[in-house]
Parts: sequence; structure tokens; C-alpha cells
Amino acid sequence: MPRYRTHDIGNAMKKKTSAKPSAPTAPTAPTVMPPISPSSPPTPSKTDAPTPALLATPSPFASLPPDGQVRAVIDAVLPVVDGGRFAIKRTAGEPVEVKAHCFTDGHDALRVMLQWRVDGAEHAHEVPMVLLNNDVWEASFAPSTPGRYSYTVVAWVDAFSSWRSELARRIDDEDIRIAAQVGAIEIAAAAGRATGRHATELHRFAQALDLGAADRKIDGTSLKALALDTELARLASLYPDRRHEARFSVELPLIVDRERARFSSWYELFPRSAGTEPGVHGTFRDVEARLPAIADMGFDVLYFPPIHPVGRVQRKGRNNALTTEPGDVGSPWAIGSTEGGHKSILPELGTPEDFRHLVNAARQRGIDIAMDIAFQCAPDHPYVKEHPGWFRWRPDGSVQYAENPPKKYQDIYPFNFECDDWQGLWLELKSVFDHWIAQGVTIFRVDNPHTKAFSFWEWVITEIKREHPTVIFLAEAFTRPKVMHRLAKLGFSQSYTYYTWRNTKEELTAYFTELSKGPGHEYFRPNVWPNTPDILHEQLQSGNPSMFRLRLVLAATLAASYGIYGPAYELIEHLPRHEGSEEYLDSEKYQLRTWDHGQPKSIAPLIARINQIRHDNPALQANGSLRFLPVENDRLLAYAKASADGRNVVVTVVNLDPDNAQFGWINLTPASIGVPPGHSFQVHDLLSDQHFLWEGDYHYVRLDPHYTPAHVFVVRRRVRNENDFDYFE
Amino acid sequence: MPRYRTHDIGNAMKKKTSAKPSAPTAPTAPTVMPPISPSSPPTPSKTDAPTPALLATPSPFASLPPDGQVRAVIDAVLPVVDGGRFAIKRTAGEPVEVKAHCFTDGHDALRVMLQWRVDGAEHAHEVPMVLLNNDVWEASFAPSTPGRYSYTVVAWVDAFSSWRSELARRIDDEDIRIAAQVGAIEIAAAAGRATGRHATELHRFAQALDLGAADRKIDGTSLKALALDTELARLASLYPDRRHEARFSVELPLIVDRERARFSSWYELFPRSAGTEPGVHGTFRDVEARLPAIADMGFDVLYFPPIHPVGRVQRKGRNNALTTEPGDVGSPWAIGSTEGGHKSILPELGTPEDFRHLVNAARQRGIDIAMDIAFQCAPDHPYVKEHPGWFRWRPDGSVQYAENPPKKYQDIYPFNFECDDWQGLWLELKSVFDHWIAQGVTIFRVDNPHTKAFSFWEWVITEIKREHPTVIFLAEAFTRPKVMHRLAKLGFSQSYTYYTWRNTKEELTAYFTELSKGPGHEYFRPNVWPNTPDILHEQLQSGNPSMFRLRLVLAATLAASYGIYGPAYELIEHLPRHEGSEEYLDSEKYQLRTWDHGQPKSIAPLIARINQIRHDNPALQANGSLRFLPVENDRLLAYAKASADGRNVVVTVVNLDPDNAQFGWINLTPASIGVPPGHSFQVHDLLSDQHFLWEGDYHYVRLDPHYTPAHVFVVRRRVRNENDFDYFE
Repeated sequence: MPRYRTHDIGNAMKKKTSAKPSAPTAPTAPTVMPPISPSSPPTPSKTDAPTPALLATPSPFASLPPDGQVRAVIDAVLPVVDGGRFAIKRTAGEPVEVKAHCFTDGHDALRVMLQWRVDGAEHAHEVPMVLLNNDVWEASFAPSTPGRYSYTVVAWVDAFSSWRSELARRIDDEDIRIAAQVGAIEIAAAAGRATGRHATELHRFAQALDLGAADRKIDGTSLKALALDTELARLASLYPDRRHEARFSVELPLIVDRERARFSSWYELFPRSAGTEPGVHGTFRDVEARLPAIADMGFDVLYFPPIHPVGRVQRKGRNNALTTEPGDVGSPWAIGSTEGGHKSILPELGTPEDFRHLVNAARQRGIDIAMDIAFQCAPDHPYVKEHPGWFRWRPDGSVQYAENPPKKYQDIYPFNFECDDWQGLWLELKSVFDHWIAQGVTIFRVDNPHTKAFSFWEWVITEIKREHPTVIFLAEAFTRPKVMHRLAKLGFSQSYTYYTWRNTKEELTAYFTELSKGPGHEYFRPNVWPNTPDILHEQLQSGNPSMFRLRLVLAATLAASYGIYGPAYELIEHLPRHEGSEEYLDSEKYQLRTWDHGQPKSIAPLIARINQIRHDNPALQANGSLRFLPVENDRLLAYAKASADGRNVVVTVVNLDPDNAQFGWINLTPASIGVPPGHSFQVHDLLSDQHFLWEGDYHYVRLDPHYTPAHVFVVRRRVRNENDFDYFE
Repeated sequence: MPRYRTHDIGNAMKKKTSAKPSAPTAPTAPTVMPPISPSSPPTPSKTDAPTPALLATPSPFASLPPDGQVRAVIDAVLPVVDGGRFAIKRTAGEPVEVKAHCFTDGHDALRVMLQWRVDGAEHAHEVPMVLLNNDVWEASFAPSTPGRYSYTVVAWVDAFSSWRSELARRIDDEDIRIAAQVGAIEIAAAAGRATGRHATELHRFAQALDLGAADRKIDGTSLKALALDTELARLASLYPDRRHEARFSVELPLIVDRERARFSSWYELFPRSAGTEPGVHGTFRDVEARLPAIADMGFDVLYFPPIHPVGRVQRKGRNNALTTEPGDVGSPWAIGSTEGGHKSILPELGTPEDFRHLVNAARQRGIDIAMDIAFQCAPDHPYVKEHPGWFRWRPDGSVQYAENPPKKYQDIYPFNFECDDWQGLWLELKSVFDHWIAQGVTIFRVDNPHTKAFSFWEWVITEIKREHPTVIFLAEAFTRPKVMHRLAKLGFSQSYTYYTWRNTKEELTAYFTELSKGPGHEYFRPNVWPNTPDILHEQLQSGNPSMFRLRLVLAATLAASYGIYGPAYELIEHLPRHEGSEEYLDSEKYQLRTWDHGQPKSIAPLIARINQIRHDNPALQANGSLRFLPVENDRLLAYAKASADGRNVVVTVVNLDPDNAQFGWINLTPASIGVPPGHSFQVHDLLSDQHFLWEGDYHYVRLDPHYTPAHVFVVRRRVRNENDFDYFE
């Protein structure tokens, strides 16, 4: 949480030197008074009762701020989210570049420091900030460990630097002589703040300058050289007078996650459909058997819909039927039955030991298991009997099921977050996370977080991350933009997006520009999905494999985090429940399925290739550098991304037309990717392994969807010449 | 000052109803705890010493926020400056349009209220906010009196509205019946919060609904009609359950000024040059004689450089010479001599009585006298002897004069704002303002505020405006953009700008777009000057009257506040002290001048006309509506401004070329000014009194600088037709 201070003109650092004597005419102002407060009369003490006239006229000093001698101004510190109410997000080792708008009155010199600390810690690290231009100062820091941090800026008018920079501009001998005397006093003061050898050396400098100023045989030029000595400047800078330091009014919060919060490749499957025999319920062991293939495809997060006992009361049948047939397994999101609730495992999937075994086996292959957290109950969830107060009861004695009239979800009871026992409810829900963390889970995909109280999410995520800073939360909220952003501000590490519904060049360009550059980019980490068990977009319903390929390449190269509802995507599952529906026909949400991963139509090889490219190219592991490249063909989308150090540049060109070959000229100036003007450069298509030599600003590209959906070029800046030939002497 | 609250999920309003009974299992959470605090163990009481194990495990409830039942979210309140650290500015009667980003989880209905109050007052006015779209709510308020105010937003999930909007969507009879029962309970609760007749009526509604729900003879449709009764809705809305109300975390500050802070026309003159006889020192009486002419020109602020005794020590001679000749009057900014300082009047100008007489005479004509406040001293200012501690002393026993090496200003001693007696200094400087306010002055033009401590300005302006809310402060700071903006944030009512150096179409378009639409527009009120005694811009040095005319029209129509250094501008004074200088030759800053206002070259008639146009057209009295109109000629600048109600539209076209006629086609679509497409409209040039009939999107304009610098069209939307003819039947 940001710690607001009363005002931003600073608290003097009192520790280093003795306080100046206060002026005899001025009583000391109270130290915790805001700079401008309503001038209410001071409360008279009983022993020193003022006259009525004095009571009516409050002391004029009462309105003065505590330290009017603070002259440095810190007008802004960036990045900032909502004035510091919410944290920016980074991953471990990633630099946080901080800018501050600082200045002072007149021409005096300022020193500005970035301060950062572990949230709540006493000790702050201090990094000198450097003036760029236009009163903008910059510095950066990079915490190496996940956790919660804060940063702010302090600044002071530096007497020594001011004196030194003025002296450098002085011309007149007599001016220099007087300035040298002034400097000697400043340096002696710095010596007084120093200890040991530094104190001695500074005293020596002060004395030399004072003697030099007095010695008429020494001319201005020599005196100036002595005063501008760089070793003197270095020493003096170590012992500044920071009594009148300004401190920015807010400690800005920062959340540092592990790298996977920024760069991740998700694969979703229903464990109960992981079996190989039709009609036989899949198990965690079946999932374990799939791990090598999933790892080979390059995924690092394996996400399961809920694995808990499924409610029997009001259970939905196949294709969301209101009634069940014998053997129907129900929706895994209708959680809870006599077998248990959110902390239990559906017995058909296996035992808790099986689950832990699977989590460990996945970890061996670099894969995190992501657990679905859907805070809602089937009518037969144990909570309904044990905590009736957590639900809304209707006058007819039934529990209010989920509905959005006229739609009804009779198999789902929502929690009542306004209930009297909200505290008990919150603590229990938190214990669900704690339970699974204890089983080895470190990633949670939260189902519909926007239908639960927002303040709950801020609390639970902050509390859990305080104990387990590496835990990652993905918000599954397909809702209005401000609501999605709020959830990200409250602490969700990643967020679902509108990618599924962004298809044209114009839509994709506008949306990914917003995601990578818009005001949310400091806290909203997009995770883009071409499909989910709930969304089979109209474009995929044709079953054209080219469309599946191009949507995959877009997701994987536009965003640092993406995911697929795997088996259905790999195997080009494309039939909707009915025309105009976005629901899958025979959806796994309501029935068991088996998947034949060996089918030749599987696009697993392309998926494996694209994930390998993501893994090898840092440019694709973050979002901020994305920029779209002009190409005069509305079916070709071209964009470039670069790594933070600029050394890895990936240029992707996707043919948005799944049926026809498209060609055009990409506008990419060599200078924009660090190639000197006039030089040619090589681009290597990592999908086709072809090499091309490009020069100038426009580059011809032709993509035939029957052959490839895209080029994913890595730029090789240096083009080989004869010196590279093996036998060149 | 903004009042930060611990967090923004709200304080429950406890006053209306009894608190819900707390759940037996949940101890009450502390009420002033931030939502997320480090989980430190509670301090054990001595009588109930916990076991060591309990000490190590703090209560899980300790981490919970005070009111987790608050479900409404207020994500943003706009306008806001730096998170509420600084005030937005309006003038009395001008509406403050507030937007709030509000939502809640799920589908429940929200009610949102804008609250505003006199700063620090207990009582807040409440205005219902209306949902526009995309979770943006809007309402406005318009304080009628200058002063300091604050505004914020509260919101709550409204049980009655949620119930009503769900009911409206219900279809099934049985659903409606149960919903009616639920509604009866909500309405009975509202009745319990109501009193008198309202309570009775609500009780009656509740009963009717309950009985209706129980009566199987009443069908769903009738029951629904009863439940949706609009009088019931109106009554219930008066007695909402606001216990779980959210409140935005900050009370945002607002400064309301009198109208002249937004819309003003300034005329600067040196009173000592107001005489008519060469070599004779002008007086306040001479100025009084000029008042009718100044009023006729339409100015409403008359600004004088300092009128105090001028220092004799180190006095500057004519044209800034380092030595004086007998009779040299010195720079009025070198303030103070044995005759007195900042509260005294130069005897040659007149007596304090003369000054008060002038102030009153000006006021009779609707003119405010603006006083120059230059906080600096001539070496012989009484302060130097009386308060040596307010200055910086050099080791040679002299006072440090103003300098920016190698430049020196030996006739000016700056105050040392870091001095020990800063409190005494601040109070004395404030008393200078107080002194002149007592003499009737209500506008201060502050000289170089950026060379004095920023925190001083915030304090002094806030303190003075607390006592005198109609006082206006103009910041004369020609410095870096962030510094100028900071001064405006700290409280200056108006600010000097870079207008003087913005000359080309591109420069003017970019700069005035920034001023009217940029992030500073909520607090930075530009006051634009084509010249000042310090700045005779190169473009004016030709002495081409066309250039003087066009720069005047630009200033007066682009900005709601503008000013001229009058006599010199009126009379086309144009010679610089030397080539490449922006200083006037024989500048009034250093010598007496006399001005022959009757000269035929005077542009006073144009000035009078343009000020009359400003006075008559509200469109020109504010800045926010400015928009530039495309015209394919780089020497023609066209722009439109509209009044807040849209009824007054002024389109100005200026020929930036002072030598040649220019023509072009202005792009102005009728729809953009409220004219139905296909209709023609009349524009009336208020400078030439010509009328033109325009239709379509492009309009031909030709401007010859020898005849007129500009068109200033007012748009007459309705074109007369035969119905307007006197004898039409």
C-alpha cells in the first residue's frame, strides 16, 4: 500500500548535523502540520491562558509549513498507477526505469536520488538519478527476488554543486577569489560531516582554498583549477548537507514476480478426457502420460478446469441439457458433492497422492500445473449445509442460484459476499488457495473473478503473495474494460483479453497497441487465447487448418503469454453446438471425450516450432517493444519486437487470409533495428528456415496459407562477407 | 489539501440503521485498519496472556479490511491533478463536470453520488450521477461563490434497484411470485428507514406486494406491474441502505475564482511615463487621466510595474547602463531606498491617497489595478539593514547580489529563502500582499516567481485566498515548462506563456492545442502577451503595423486572457536596443518616456474593436473549445471557439503574412457548429461588419494585410428566408 505523507516538500534529514539555531523571533512551527491548514486557534494550555484577544487571533506562525527551507521540488515520479494506489509489475531481474520531474527555484544545482526498498523495510537502497533534459531525471533498479517493493525519490538543493557549477562559469579574478572563500566554508562543512581520512582530506582542501584566496600571488585561473579539483568534488559529494531534503509524497508500490508471470505458454486440458479409451474416465495418471508430448510442444503451464467432486443435484447433461442421462459427468465448474468441495479431488481422477505425483512430474519437465479456482458451489456442496449463512436464501426456503434474468444456472450457487459472516467466508476461501499451494500448486486461473467482491481479491492475492511471492494468478474475466483493468490493478498477475474476438488487421493493430503501450501496460499483463472451452470463435468454425495456424502464430508472437485449449485446438475441433453459437458441440464441459493425438491433421509440430522460437528469442518474451510495420495489404499484418537490450529483433508477418496467397512490401527501416543506413541485413525465417537478404526500407513478402501462415524472421544484423569465408587470409 | 483516506473501499454509513449482528464465529475486525497491513501479532493484554504458540500465529482476522461487505468500486474520479495533490480551477457559476468510473461485481445495480462541499466544511451537497456508458458516470455542480471547495464520489450496490431491474427481466410466473416476496422484504426495510407519510406508503406497498405474491388469483403480469410501480420506485430510492457505501479515497480540491481569472484583458503602463510633458515624472493623477481611453479600448486590468521607491545604490542608467546620469530614474524593479520599500510609494508618483483614488476611479470603469510583486531589494532597501538575516552575506562583508555567472545584477539583492529566519521572511512578504489588498488591490502580477521558493507560493497564495478568495495572481515566469506548470498547480490564477515566441502556423497550432487540451488545462490559465517591456520580439522589430495588428488579433482570439505592454504596442514602438536584442531601445524600464496617443498610426481603434468583440462573444471568454480548422495555406491560420452552451460560435481566420494577401479554403463542416447538413449559414465578420453566406464544408477566404489582418466571424446559424420578410403572410 502506498504510504501517503502529509505533503511533498519533505522531511528534513535530521540525523547528520546539528540543527541550525532557530531565529529568535520565530517560534518553532509544529512538525507534523500540513503546509496549508485551516487557521484554527491553538488550544490554550491551562497554565498559560492567553487573553481573549490572543485567542481570537491565532499565531501567524501556525499556518506555516514545517520546513519552508526545503527548496527542491519533486513534481512527479513515474511510473505510477492511480497516484500510487496500485502497484506496477515487473519480474525478477527486470529493470524498473524510474523518471522524476525535479527542479528548484533559480539556478542552484540539485541532487536527486531514487530510493527503493522491500515493502515495509526500514532500509532503503539509494541510486543517484541523472538529469536527461527538460527537468526529467532518471535511474533504474532491478530487484532480483520476487516480492513486494516500494520506490520513491528524494532531492535536495546541493550547496557544494551549486557553488562549483557557478564557479566554473566565473571569469573575473576578484569574483573567483571571493567564490573560493565561500567554497572553503562549504568544504569545511562537508569535512565536518565526514569522518576519518575523508574528513582530513576535505579539511585540507578547504584550507588550501582559503589560503589560495588570500594569496594575491595566486591568480584566478590557478585558484579556479584548485577549486574545481575532481577529487575534491568526489569527496564533497559523499557528504552533502541533506537537512532540507524534499521527499516525494508517496512510496510507490511495485510487485516483482517470477519470470513466468511475464512469459508463459499455457496448455489447457480436461484431465477426465485424458484417457485413451472412449467412455472411460481419464485420470491424473493419464495426464502424466501426456506430459512428454506437452513438454515437447514447448508449453510451460498446464491448466486444468476444476478437478473437484462434481455436484449431482441439478447436474447438467451433455451439451448443457437440463436433464442428465446415466453416466453423465456434469460440468466440473458445478463444484462439490458428498465427496467434498474445493479442497477435494474427484475420486475418478485419482488420489491426492496421484495429484502431487503429477505436479512433481510436470515440474521435472519445467511445467507448472495451474489450478482452476471457481468460487461457487453445486447445490450439494458441503458448504451449503455447513455454512448456510454464506448463501442468499429465498422466501421459499431455497437457495438463490446464479441467474441473470431470464438466464438461470440452477446447478450453481454463488456465495453472498455481503453476508454477515463475510470474514469467515473470506478466510475459508483463502484456505482453498493455501490448501493447493501445500499440494505444490503455484499458479491459479481464477474463474469469473468479476462476479466476486473486488476487495476480496485485493486482500487474498496480497495475503497469499506475502507468504508465497512466486504464486501467479490469472484473471479469467471476459467483461468490460475498466472491470478487467481493476482486477489487474488489485493484483492479478495475468489477465484474459479480447484477443479471441480481434481478427482483422485494424482490430489487431489497435488492440495490441493498447495492450503494449496503453495506460494499463504497467500492471495489465495480457494472456491471449485463440480458443477456450467456452469460446469457439466463428472464424474457427470453418475448420480451415490455415485459420487455426495463423491464429496460433498471432497469439504466440503478439503476446508474451498465450494459451490454447489444447486438444481441441491441436486437432482442429471446429463444430459449434448450433449455428450462431460459440460453444463447442459435444463440449468436454459436459461429457467425457477422448482425443487421438496421432492424427495427421494435428498442428502440434507447428505449435512445437513456435514455442521453441519463443523460448529462443527474448524479443518475444515481453510486450512493451511491439510496433506494427506499415504494409499496403490489409490481409498482411507485420510487426517487430525487440529484446530489452535491442540485440534480439523478431519481425513477424502473418497472412490473415486463410485461403489465398498475399504479398506486399513491408516498411522496415534498417535504422529502426540498429542496422546502419545503407547496409543490408539478413533475416532468417525461423518457421521455414529460409534466409533472405534485405536492404533499404521496403521488403517484399509473399505468404501462401497452404504452405505457411507466417514468416517469423529473426534479424541477423551482420551480413557475412569474404572475411567470414573459412579460408580467407 | 486532499484528505487521503486509508483505502477506497469505503466507510460504512452507520447512522441510518442498526448494525447487522456480527457472525458468532467472527470477531469484529478493527475499524481503522488498512485493508492490507503487515500481519504483525496483536499486542497481548496482561490479563489474557496468550500462549507462546498463539503469539507466533497472529489472528487471521487481523489482516481483514474493516468492511469487506463494500462491493461498489470507484476506480477513478475526474478531473484530477496529480492524484488530488493540486486543485483544478473554475470560475464562479462555471459548471464542474465530474466523471467517475464505477462498477460492482456481477449484475447488481449501483447508485453513485457526487459530493461537493466548501473545503473543510462538514456539510456536503450530493448530486446523483448518471451512467453514460462503459462504466463512466457523470454529474456536475457549479459553486456560485469564489473560494476553495472539494469534491468526491460515493457509490453503493443498491438492493432495491438491483431487485427492480432483475424483476423487469423476469418472465416465469413462479419466478415473479418469489421475486415479489423478496421485494416486499426490501421495501419493508426501506419503510423502516423512512419516517412519516413515506414510511406509511412504503409499508403499504410492501404489504400489497406480499399479499399479491400469496394470492394465486393474481397472475405474474399483474404482480410485476404492481412491483414496478414508479411511485414505489421513487419512494424507495429516497431511503436506500447505504451501510456498505464506498467512498473515493481522496477529496479532490477545487479553486473557484471570480470570472476575471478566466477572462481578462490586460494593459500595462509605467505610471511615471503617463505624463504628457517630456522629462516630467508622471503621476497617478496622469494615469487617472488616461483611464477613459483605456476603458474605451476595452481593457479590464491595468497593470503597473513596481510603484515603490527606486534604489539609488548601483542604480542602472538609461538603456541599462552601469552608471547613471543626473536625473536617471532607475529600474522600478530595483525596489527600496531610504523612502521605503515594498509597502511604500515612490513620492514622485503621488501619495497613498492618490493611489487609492486611482484604484477607485479605475474600479468605477470596471478596471482592476494589478500590482507588480517583485520580491527583491535594491541595496538601499530598508530590509537590508533591518533584516540582514534575510540575505546571503559574502566573506568580504558584502551582500550577495543576483547573478547567473557571468551575468551580474548588482542593483538587485535576492532574498535567501534558506535563511534561518525564513518564517519571519515569509510572514513579512505575505504582509506586503495584505498591505496592498487593504489599499484596494485585488490582482497581483508576480515577477519571476520561479526564482523564489516554490513552497512559499503555495503557502502565501492559499493563505491570502482563504481570506480574500477573489484575489487573482498572475505568474510572470518565462522558464521551463514543468516549472511554469508547477507554479500554476501551486495556486497562481494565471500564467505567462511562450506566445511571444510562437509565430508560425505550426507553432501556434501545436502550442494553443497544448494549452487548451493538454494535461495542464485544468489548472494552467494562459495569459498571452505579444510584447512586454522585456520582450520586443524580432518579428515586431520591422515596425510593420500589419504585424502588430495580426499578433494582437491572435492573442485576443486564441486566449481568453491576454495583455499588451500598451503604449509601446499601440504606437508601434519597434526599435531594439541593438541588433539581435529583444530589449526596447530607450526602454521605459530605465528612463521616463512620454507617449503621444493621438498619433494616426495608433492601432487603438483595432484594439477597442477586438476587445468589444471579446466582450460580446462568450466563445472567446474561455479556452477549452478551441479547435483549429484545416486550410491548405501555411500563412492562413483558422480556428473556431464555441461558448459552453454551443450557441455562440466564433471562427477566426488570421493572415500570418504581414506583407501579402493570402487566400484559401477553410474546412468547416456545418454539423461541427450545429448547422444541419445541407443548410447554408451566415457568418458575420465582426471586424469589417461584412456578411457572407457559407454552405458545404469548404469556404473561401482572402485576407489582404493592408486592409485587415483577420476575419473574426460570428456564426449566425439561421439564414433568413421569405418568412422573415416583413410583409410575408
